[in-house]
Amino acid sequence: MKKFVYQFSEGKKEQADLLGGKGSNLAEMSNLGLPVPHGFTITTEACVDYIHRGFVLQEEIKKQILITLEKMEQITGRRFSDEKNPLLVSVRSGAKFSMPGMMDTILNLGLNDFTVDVLAKKTKNPVFAYDCYRRLLQMFGEVVSQIPKNRFEDQLEYVKKKNSYMSDTELTAADWQYLVKIFKEIYLHETGKEFPQDPKEQLFLAIEAVFMSWMNPRAKVYRSLHHISEKLGTAVNIQEMVFGNTGENSGTGVAFSRNPATGEKGLFGEFLMNAQGEDVVAGVRTPRNITELEVLMPEVYKEFLGIVAKLEAHYKDMQDIEFTIENKKLFILQTRNGKRTPKAAFKIVVDLVESGVLTKEEAIMRVQPEMIAPLLHPVFDEEILKQHIAIGEGLPASPGSTSGQIYFHAAEATLAKARGERVILFRKETSPDDIEGMVISEAIVTSRGGMTSHAAVVARGMGVCCVVGCEELLINEEAKTVHTKFGEVLNEGDLVSIDGSSGKIYLGEIPTEEASENKNLKTVLGWADTCSRMKVRANAETAKDIAAAFSFDAVGIGLARTEHMFFGEERILNMRKLILATDERERNKALATLKEIQKGDFLEIFALTQEKPVTVRLLDPPLHEFLPKTDVEIEVLARELSLSEVEIRERIDALEEVNPMLGHRGCRLAVTFPEIYIMQTKAIVESALALKVQQGINTKVEIMIPLTVEARELAFVKEQVEEAITEVVENSKVDWSCKVGTMIEIPRACLTADEIAQHAEFFSFGTNDLTQMTFGFSRDDAGKFIGAYLDKKLLKNDPFQTLDTVGVGELIRVAIDKARTVKPAMKLGVCGETGGDPESIHFYHEVGLDYVSCSPYRVPIARLACAQANLKK
Amino acid sequence: MKKFVYQFSEGKKEQADLLGGKGSNLAEMSNLGLPVPHGFTITTEACVDYIHRGFVLQEEIKKQILITLEKMEQITGRRFSDEKNPLLVSVRSGAKFSMPGMMDTILNLGLNDFTVDVLAKKTKNPVFAYDCYRRLLQMFGEVVSQIPKNRFEDQLEYVKKKNSYMSDTELTAADWQYLVKIFKEIYLHETGKEFPQDPKEQLFLAIEAVFMSWMNPRAKVYRSLHHISEKLGTAVNIQEMVFGNTGENSGTGVAFSRNPATGEKGLFGEFLMNAQGEDVVAGVRTPRNITELEVLMPEVYKEFLGIVAKLEAHYKDMQDIEFTIENKKLFILQTRNGKRTPKAAFKIVVDLVESGVLTKEEAIMRVQPEMIAPLLHPVFDEEILKQHIAIGEGLPASPGSTSGQIYFHAAEATLAKARGERVILFRKETSPDDIEGMVISEAIVTSRGGMTSHAAVVARGMGVCCVVGCEELLINEEAKTVHTKFGEVLNEGDLVSIDGSSGKIYLGEIPTEEASENKNLKTVLGWADTCSRMKVRANAETAKDIAAAFSFDAVGIGLARTEHMFFGEERILNMRKLILATDERERNKALATLKEIQKGDFLEIFALTQEKPVTVRLLDPPLHEFLPKTDVEIEVLARELSLSEVEIRERIDALEEVNPMLGHRGCRLAVTFPEIYIMQTKAIVESALALKVQQGINTKVEIMIPLTVEARELAFVKEQVEEAITEVVENSKVDWSCKVGTMIEIPRACLTADEIAQHAEFFSFGTNDLTQMTFGFSRDDAGKFIGAYLDKKLLKNDPFQTLDTVGVGELIRVAIDKARTVKPAMKLGVCGETGGDPESIHFYHEVGLDYVSCSPYRVPIARLACAQANLKK
Repeated sequence: MKKFVYQFSEGKKEQADLLGGKGSNLAEMSNLGLPVPHGFTITTEACVDYIHRGFVLQEEIKKQILITLEKMEQITGRRFSDEKNPLLVSVRSGAKFSMPGMMDTILNLGLNDFTVDVLAKKTKNPVFAYDCYRRLLQMFGEVVSQIPKNRFEDQLEYVKKKNSYMSDTELTAADWQYLVKIFKEIYLHETGKEFPQDPKEQLFLAIEAVFMSWMNPRAKVYRSLHHISEKLGTAVNIQEMVFGNTGENSGTGVAFSRNPATGEKGLFGEFLMNAQGEDVVAGVRTPRNITELEVLMPEVYKEFLGIVAKLEAHYKDMQDIEFTIENKKLFILQTRNGKRTPKAAFKIVVDLVESGVLTKEEAIMRVQPEMIAPLLHPVFDEEILKQHIAIGEGLPASPGSTSGQIYFHAAEATLAKARGERVILFRKETSPDDIEGMVISEAIVTSRGGMTSHAAVVARGMGVCCVVGCEELLINEEAKTVHTKFGEVLNEGDLVSIDGSSGKIYLGEIPTEEASENKNLKTVLGWADTCSRMKVRANAETAKDIAAAFSFDAVGIGLARTEHMFFGEERILNMRKLILATDERERNKALATLKEIQKGDFLEIFALTQEKPVTVRLLDPPLHEFLPKTDVEIEVLARELSLSEVEIRERIDALEEVNPMLGHRGCRLAVTFPEIYIMQTKAIVESALALKVQQGINTKVEIMIPLTVEARELAFVKEQVEEAITEVVENSKVDWSCKVGTMIEIPRACLTADEIAQHAEFFSFGTNDLTQMTFGFSRDDAGKFIGAYLDKKLLKNDPFQTLDTVGVGELIRVAIDKARTVKPAMKLGVCGETGGDPESIHFYHEVGLDYVSCSPYRVPIARLACAQANLKK
Repeated sequence: MKKFVYQFSEGKKEQADLLGGKGSNLAEMSNLGLPVPHGFTITTEACVDYIHRGFVLQEEIKKQILITLEKMEQITGRRFSDEKNPLLVSVRSGAKFSMPGMMDTILNLGLNDFTVDVLAKKTKNPVFAYDCYRRLLQMFGEVVSQIPKNRFEDQLEYVKKKNSYMSDTELTAADWQYLVKIFKEIYLHETGKEFPQDPKEQLFLAIEAVFMSWMNPRAKVYRSLHHISEKLGTAVNIQEMVFGNTGENSGTGVAFSRNPATGEKGLFGEFLMNAQGEDVVAGVRTPRNITELEVLMPEVYKEFLGIVAKLEAHYKDMQDIEFTIENKKLFILQTRNGKRTPKAAFKIVVDLVESGVLTKEEAIMRVQPEMIAPLLHPVFDEEILKQHIAIGEGLPASPGSTSGQIYFHAAEATLAKARGERVILFRKETSPDDIEGMVISEAIVTSRGGMTSHAAVVARGMGVCCVVGCEELLINEEAKTVHTKFGEVLNEGDLVSIDGSSGKIYLGEIPTEEASENKNLKTVLGWADTCSRMKVRANAETAKDIAAAFSFDAVGIGLARTEHMFFGEERILNMRKLILATDERERNKALATLKEIQKGDFLEIFALTQEKPVTVRLLDPPLHEFLPKTDVEIEVLARELSLSEVEIRERIDALEEVNPMLGHRGCRLAVTFPEIYIMQTKAIVESALALKVQQGINTKVEIMIPLTVEARELAFVKEQVEEAITEVVENSKVDWSCKVGTMIEIPRACLTADEIAQHAEFFSFGTNDLTQMTFGFSRDDAGKFIGAYLDKKLLKNDPFQTLDTVGVGELIRVAIDKARTVKPAMKLGVCGETGGDPESIHFYHEVGLDYVSCSPYRVPIARLACAQANLKK
């Protein structure tokens, strides 16, 4: 027969699946010899069996419960309904993962009209005894029979009012006795039955109530939200009651083994004398600092210190411990790993490694990648923040907290910055045109776009705070106003505060606490690097971003975008000339100017990357992104090119695209317009050669061709690029070479990766575009519906943030398999947004990528995730 | 030892791989006992061997040639350089597929300074003998030694001028003798060597020249264009010379066994007396009708008739036969399947089946699907067409030939049509707004877009002639002008003629010949249907299109798009109200109105489809396509909805998308905006129920949900649709049901087809969108670069016309495999543009689809292709 019931002494902490989290920890502590009240656990399998039988508790389970109960009675020397030593127990649910919505606790089960008097006599404390009984009636009524809480509470309030009591402690035995009578009447009236006097009946009803609560709607919703399987079931823990409220020799409290805010070692917690657990939380009485216990009960305190040390050493982690003192005797009711701030988390694991409790590998698995971002950015002063209500909430695109004045246009923002103001840029959405304004802003807010919109990507790259897709705000760029959902109107220059981690926007200024370098984080990440198989690079091309990336110990640059280099006044004018020139001479002049500008850019980049690898992506966006938009710009260009404005407009019109994302861009430009890639390649090679000649730096350039869709296309474009390399290198007579590879970001490229691999020295997966095309979701437009998909659980995640392993991941898997058949040792990486997402990184590790590349401020997160992926069995 | 040389008597027609097309047919005819001049073939393997050895003819091959030559001398009784009976031969190349650019023919090989006199004496015709010799010198010089043709021609011209001859026939023996002397001097001067007098040396040099020509640049380009493998090599045919130019008892000609224009049975051809083959083609003398031969040489004619009949019966196809008569003796020099018009092709196979020569299955394999389109549409009078030069050429989007007057806007086109004019609509590109104008136009011309642009798809569906992507024409819709590349300017109302099969546009009117019903085509398609596994449906939703589809025997409608139904004045206004209404009441009113309109549409459709299956696709395009664009439309809508124009503009702005193709459309609308699909579903079901109740028609509706990307999404939308069905059906108390399925048109849907299949009763692959996303090519924008990809051979086909089996096809294969694991018998079809493309249809047959659905005018093409796919081994 299957074993459905375990005494605490029969279990261990590894049995959370079977005994639940609480049950397995109680078992573990029992076996450690800690003073845990005696008890047993009914397994999660019993729960599943109960549900499968249509909510029926089979006889076998009942039998096992009764046998184990009998053993408990023997061990404790107390028995249900005993006239001298009645057994009282608590009944608690305990699933593998703690969940709200479940039936939680029934205390004092075993009390009835008879044993309440035995208890009163035995403790000489009828107030205590009748209070216990009315608590049972109330909890049982609420939990087992679903009687509304206020039916009981109202009566208690009535008694207090009538007697002008301020607190529950003033009630007399007679008052409690009266309430017991009334509560029993309520029970009868609400359920049509008398409150069960048989403790065994009480017990079975309570157990069934726990099992049933596993299927209640709130629990179901929670599980589906947190991807917890319905098949797990919950366990039930039956434990002998101990009382912290028998008088001044009793008490109850909660303590952490370390400070959960800072991670500092030392007991941290609070307690109350003559109280039950819930009183500490309720806040009616002010709890006392745990250190005071040393004065009050030195023996107990000493024993507790020993237990805390033992538990921490045993669980190898900071513990959150509930205890009760009954007549000077200490009982441990629960222990679990304590919740902590990110700062504390890193401090604790470093301390635990230094004291030999944890290995470095264990330490790495104990911290979460999400804990890192808050350590890299300033945060609002928590107390002051509480006084503010958000006027709008969007997607938290880039973390950080900051205040500043609203501006709507890059030019005005730049002027304000020059005046010394702190600027927050508000835009419906941003485009490459806004770069100058974005760079000097403290924060960026948009009303459109998702987590991978232009604003979000650029801001994350720069480590600038950013909130996107805040549709609650009506941003009118022309009128320079923001309408909030509360009807307020903000104007240019108004002060606001932005929280990039929560996506919230506040009126006025909120002071922040600056992030300082976190030594413990640095230590853990150092360990992580030694435990990783994959390397972490950064997506960066500006001096600021590259410096940030290397300060976070990126091993190289995995994506340096060259299109950002074409914005800025002189640059874009020449780019426009190049695109629109009708005469060869004008075009060549523009090309030559652009090449010199690009050379300057690459010299700057390569001087920073030194001999670290740097992947330079050739021009990617559609040409029309560079075209003039305003009348003034068109006029200037017409003059420069000696064309009429009408002609310029016609050419712009001809370049316009219905779906630019699927349009004339990436290496498609090199098929129709080879001069640009050749110019870029020559600028790259000449810069690298100059650095080698002048400074002896051996730049490790990887030239990346974007948007390949077909092997012959790549072969064609690569030939142009390689000819340009050869030409420059041969002329220079310097010994230098570089790799040429491609981005894999189109479904067809994945499906034909074996053919494409023959022409590429490396692959870098571009998950942004690959996700767009695999889903048919435009990053710029998906904001209109993706929220509904997440709300309705039609999608598990936003696929632009966390890789969709089923669809997009399958294409990546296919591509890797195919590429490896042709070139088993080919270098494979990823440089899309998901390259910095921990869940996605686990996938990339599993499929065998060599590196991930992400925005600079995600590099530390990725380093930790890479190590965790590698350490995970 | 490998056999490199085959006498004609040793080969057969199945050996085209080894002996080439010409060689295998000569062998076949020899074995049939036909009067073929004696000869032998050097195999394609010898050619490949020659190339692999670095252009060296190995001794073994030379040995085999000499041995076979000796046999030939024995059989013919003539010998190289014989003083009485010198052997003269022709040397001809003959690859498996005939190709231009190859060395073709050397005649009279074996002549030299000695044998030319023997020939002159023997024939008593020195003019003939010296003419033959100078021809050899000229052909050998050109072909073997690459001496420019004009070096010889100039000398001939000089002699003619000097003697005031009008034609070559006027030259005397002395003239030819003189030219022989001069030609030999030219040969010496150009090559540094004397013309080889040894016939064996002539022979080997000629054979090597043929083999070498396999690798010449023109041949290489041709092969790569036509996907012919380089490894095939060419064969060489050595054949005894026969002369049609020995006098009035000799002659030469070409004849077809049937009329190649009409297919009528009976000899059809022409001949010349005292002439060589090339003279018939050269056009200097007017050839005589073949029937005249009966009068001139009744014996020969009778023999020829017998041979023609024998060849046709043997090859089971209309033959194109070259013959020569030498001194009243008939020789057959070549036979091959004759080229024919589409009309003739169908007539011929039907006749051949009726006379028992071909089986129906063979007949089906003998016609090409491309032959069908011209039979369905009028064509320009060929003679008159020759006098016109195209003023522009675009993509031939929809066949047909027509003339009419240019209009640029739907409204003006409609007015012109009402005045009785024939209208040609010129647009940069078309949108659903233009539908009214497109419907009444004779032809549509756009300067943008590809073969699957809006204009192309709609026009093909309607069978209207259409040319798209004609970038040579600058269409200015505002100015109402068209600028041609020749500098002409066309204005509104100008007459033009459009050829939708060639993509050419002509000035003025060109008369056409109307297409009439083709009985033979109908017969062949009838046979085809009995030989097919796949069924053919049509993409159609208007009464006109559905009628066309059924006139072409479509078995049902595979795609009835409902969005077209929302255009038209009243409809679109209500659609706009629905989208933009801020108040529930307005929205419900608009919904109710639209539902009644849709019901009318469906009643009309279902009355036509009767009990044939009809797949109705729910709304697919992004909502903003329906929004007002002009100021007037906005004003009207603002008034109707009691909103300000500013509000309307703001809402339009909010719905705008950067990449609408990847935006808020398809079933994504049903996730955020469920009312529309529910309304459509109810309209469908109510219409079907009304037809059942009133007329007893059991409509076979299949409701199709577009753009599914994830199983849970489909489950969610399907539930709404099914609830709507159930509600209407249950209220009606009529017994009726329909299927609900989905389009598979997103890469992710293919990759998760097993999950999706659980919620779908059928799949229809949408290859247009699937291709867009698999390639990352926007149909609307790819015109800018796809031409360059095809020109540079970076892509084999336009993937929007012919399915890309490597990428898109792989996704379809994956989807089918996955779907079949879940539902082995699930109905699978395709309704994208490629559903009507023969090459793609072969793929769909192989992967096991149940049906293809295409535009009505492609239904006959698809029916033939389906049969061919099934009959192909």
